[in-house]
Amino acid sequence: MNQPAPPGTKKSSNVVWCATHVSRADRERLNGHRGAVLWFTGLSGSGKSTISSAVESRLHQLGCRTYVCDGDNIRHGLNGDLGFSPADRVENIRRIAEVAKLFLDAGMIVLTAFISPYRADRAKARERMPRGDFIEVYCRCPLEVCERRDVKGMYRRARAGEIKEFTGISAPYEEPEAAEIVLNTDERSQEECVDAVIRYLRQTGVVAAELP
Amino acid sequence: MNQPAPPGTKKSSNVVWCATHVSRADRERLNGHRGAVLWFTGLSGSGKSTISSAVESRLHQLGCRTYVCDGDNIRHGLNGDLGFSPADRVENIRRIAEVAKLFLDAGMIVLTAFISPYRADRAKARERMPRGDFIEVYCRCPLEVCERRDVKGMYRRARAGEIKEFTGISAPYEEPEAAEIVLNTDERSQEECVDAVIRYLRQTGVVAAELP
Repeated sequence: MNQPAPPGTKKSSNVVWCATHVSRADRERLNGHRGAVLWFTGLSGSGKSTISSAVESRLHQLGCRTYVCDGDNIRHGLNGDLGFSPADRVENIRRIAEVAKLFLDAGMIVLTAFISPYRADRAKARERMPRGDFIEVYCRCPLEVCERRDVKGMYRRARAGEIKEFTGISAPYEEPEAAEIVLNTDERSQEECVDAVIRYLRQTGVVAAELP
Repeated sequence: MNQPAPPGTKKSSNVVWCATHVSRADRERLNGHRGAVLWFTGLSGSGKSTISSAVESRLHQLGCRTYVCDGDNIRHGLNGDLGFSPADRVENIRRIAEVAKLFLDAGMIVLTAFISPYRADRAKARERMPRGDFIEVYCRCPLEVCERRDVKGMYRRARAGEIKEFTGISAPYEEPEAAEIVLNTDERSQEECVDAVIRYLRQTGVVAAELP
């Protein structure tokens, strides 16, 4: 009931239509920065979680309102009913995009850290957002390097056939063709990667250029 | 990857495990208030949307970080794939609770405005949140009054049989038995209802008592 009452609508004498409504712009003014979606994508082990978390820390230190959506808080909660079938993977990304859109509307800088291997799914997520608010961050790292890191032991299990349809091994990863930010995580330090993201946010006015 | 690396985990020389991680407490410190879920429930036309929107406006004026989840932004987005069957209604509320939990973790005061007619669903939502963070706000209003208001013309259509399983007419509404806040919206003005919610938030320390 955020709209004015349609003409001819009956009202109770006690409940008055409330046209005042807090908008995204109001929240952004209060926050002192614009909302944005930083959509991290890349192979398992390419640094999505690590770098998104480090970017969040830096933004938080700058006084920005931030939130990271990752496997920890999404797969165990909202998307706990989904598996890894093709249909479930599509639905997984769809819901993440919708949640990111809510946080964007709340005036926050939301960072999503999921492999999100399919171009079509990422394109759909982008299309759901107002133009310019969706910032694709590609954590580019050769498969051999990710596999050598094998932080969670997943590649070993995928090679052993214990995990089916593992991205990069037995399922495709479709590289972004025009990501706003490309981080070569095997060549750059975490610090340099974080700097690159923050620089982008300043250049595009998400975060004020004059912040420390 | 927000946890420290488990012992014996291999690391790339470039990607350092990042134990610094922005917590809910960090975000609450930045915001200057606690996170909370204000879960509005009540019949269609009982004032949930109007009052939650007015509460949000007041909180925003106090400098609080807020967001309202309602039919407008949830039913058309995240839950756009759901209908009104019993199973879909359960899933609708489950997802809303999970989204509210994410906003809570983000340190925000999130207000949800859905009929949410079943006790079991509301209880499940409550159980998903840390104790004390789920605040049930019952907009109590006699069916006759809601039906007389009939803001969206839904009761008329439900009586005419055009809408099936309409809460209060052809589907049950299970009243809360121990809501934290009960608003008799047919007897109190919008202003009084908003005051009651803000008073509760001050008394329970969600919002600092000394704020204007």
